[in-house]
Amino acid sequence: MALSDTRFATRRRALAAKLAGQRVDMMLVTHLTHVRYLSGFSGSNGSVILSKDLTARASTDGRYLTQIAEEVRDLECLEARDTAVALLREVTGPRRVGFEADYVSYAQLEKLKEAAGEDVALVPISGVIEGIRLRKDPLELLRLREVAELANSAFAELIADGGIAVGRREYEIAADLEYRMRMKGAERTSFDTIVASGPNSAKPHHGAGDRVLERGDLVTVDFGAHAKGFNSDTTRTVVLGEASEFAKEIYGVVLEAQLAGCAAATPGTALVDVDWASREVIEKAGYGEYFVHSTGHGFGLDVHEAPSAARTGTGVLQENMTLTIEPGIYVPGKGGVRIEDSLIITNGVPENLTKLDKRLLVLD
Amino acid sequence: MALSDTRFATRRRALAAKLAGQRVDMMLVTHLTHVRYLSGFSGSNGSVILSKDLTARASTDGRYLTQIAEEVRDLECLEARDTAVALLREVTGPRRVGFEADYVSYAQLEKLKEAAGEDVALVPISGVIEGIRLRKDPLELLRLREVAELANSAFAELIADGGIAVGRREYEIAADLEYRMRMKGAERTSFDTIVASGPNSAKPHHGAGDRVLERGDLVTVDFGAHAKGFNSDTTRTVVLGEASEFAKEIYGVVLEAQLAGCAAATPGTALVDVDWASREVIEKAGYGEYFVHSTGHGFGLDVHEAPSAARTGTGVLQENMTLTIEPGIYVPGKGGVRIEDSLIITNGVPENLTKLDKRLLVLD
Repeated sequence: MALSDTRFATRRRALAAKLAGQRVDMMLVTHLTHVRYLSGFSGSNGSVILSKDLTARASTDGRYLTQIAEEVRDLECLEARDTAVALLREVTGPRRVGFEADYVSYAQLEKLKEAAGEDVALVPISGVIEGIRLRKDPLELLRLREVAELANSAFAELIADGGIAVGRREYEIAADLEYRMRMKGAERTSFDTIVASGPNSAKPHHGAGDRVLERGDLVTVDFGAHAKGFNSDTTRTVVLGEASEFAKEIYGVVLEAQLAGCAAATPGTALVDVDWASREVIEKAGYGEYFVHSTGHGFGLDVHEAPSAARTGTGVLQENMTLTIEPGIYVPGKGGVRIEDSLIITNGVPENLTKLDKRLLVLD
Repeated sequence: MALSDTRFATRRRALAAKLAGQRVDMMLVTHLTHVRYLSGFSGSNGSVILSKDLTARASTDGRYLTQIAEEVRDLECLEARDTAVALLREVTGPRRVGFEADYVSYAQLEKLKEAAGEDVALVPISGVIEGIRLRKDPLELLRLREVAELANSAFAELIADGGIAVGRREYEIAADLEYRMRMKGAERTSFDTIVASGPNSAKPHHGAGDRVLERGDLVTVDFGAHAKGFNSDTTRTVVLGEASEFAKEIYGVVLEAQLAGCAAATPGTALVDVDWASREVIEKAGYGEYFVHSTGHGFGLDVHEAPSAARTGTGVLQENMTLTIEPGIYVPGKGGVRIEDSLIITNGVPENLTKLDKRLLVLD
């Protein structure tokens, strides 16, 4: 058996162990990200049902039978168009079957209720698989390193080839970077690439428009690659031609905040304290009101997932969690800076997947 | 007022007129595609509530206040993190409020129930906005023509520049085409680009892998651009070097089927009959078992939406509906062909948005 096969069985074992505590006999998994996490199946229509005793079954439709046979070698597959309904119909009661409360729509639940036998009770379950996903296993860590590495090298080459330069438009730089990531194995982007230049750099959620870059601009590039199910997330801010005193000042503050956040990201640290480690630096420098978002978030199968390093964050970091550290300062009308690395929490210094220089880069 | 403002009001009027028939006083719209359709707001967090009397309100969080002020000039905006809950809290009963049954999760509905006053009843609504979206209005038709045109020209340039050639890998061609669409204004792809070469062309749902194209290959490219909320969808199959008798034969059959489907796509025609127009040609040629999907689907804000030209399709075509016509033949181990155009249904000959030649193209 390949690593991947035993890995999926291990993940299912972790979920099965939680089912008794949720007072269900089995769980019907329909969220595609979770279907992939638990089985390896990457098609666009599929479900998995898992019992406390570890028996499990998958379902997909005729289009994906060849694919599921290749990707999921250790589960029997039921062919059906409405996969969740088909799996549920096979359950003979009395049984309590959990469903994914955060992903199953009202209309879908009505169909499931109809498919469930009289002695099959449907029970809403929230956050259990997400809880297991919090700590990444070796296969996930491998995939996260791979996708981060391809994004890193694409960005490094963009810089080396003069891809961020006066006269180019924001969307041209986004297209250029995306093309480079694609050629290195990205299947798509993790999210719409941000290239925020000049005054746009003061908007944390700017996309990539048709503004032409000018000398003196701060240019924030926030980008992610998606490959083999996993996501990367990185931000760098550069300056074109010459850095103003303002640019140097806020860059310095954000960099110090970012380093403080990274240093705080160790097992046992409360997530609010990680947020504060970054935020405190910015507040002390007098820019607190311009840091309008949280310090970081987990990443994995989703590009934004638990945990959350925010003022409202809960819980503590544990080994093999992931976390971005991405403080920013955005001064309307003047410009902004964000610096973001993606970390894996270890017993010691976090493993920084973003192997890109953080010193202020002034490009010609 | 710009065309766009009056257009959103017109769409809301169409929905408001349907609410009485659904036995509700107002509708809470939370599906982001529908929020955008009814208000113009394109952010990633937002809701709209609309009454029978046409009063309406939008909500988004602090990140998007500037954006919503620019995009939605004719609605008042409530700032909130949980936008649906916030809008519902403002409703004073007795009122019956519809919610989107196909998009609201069980967990979200529980929150809405909590937010609703005792005399506010939540009523599941399905398919009403989708029904209004079936026939495209002038602004939608404009956007659909624009996005189709940019995809057309990107593909034409890919061909002219020798982008599909022996020795290139499938994913390189996908990356190349995506880059060209991006540079012409696409914000992203509508779906993962398919480049299916040689034996892979026999798999209708192949992605774009690392196979190197060879002389004699059939190469199917299925691609779409997304811009300003709207999607394009096109497929062309080409041959490299020299077309075998098999390639010429199935290409000829698929092309005849595709033309028959296009000719049948007129107002008043049942969707099953459009499907049959294409399918009959393929069945008569003896390849019926190799045409394993439906003939076409609508496209607009979603790249796959109603109507469906399938053996199980219901209803008839009407003016200003959209429909792809995309028959295919897939012979395992030998290869496949699919040809897809995107049509707007008119009173006469459909408007074909896919202005790309359909004769068999043999590339060097």
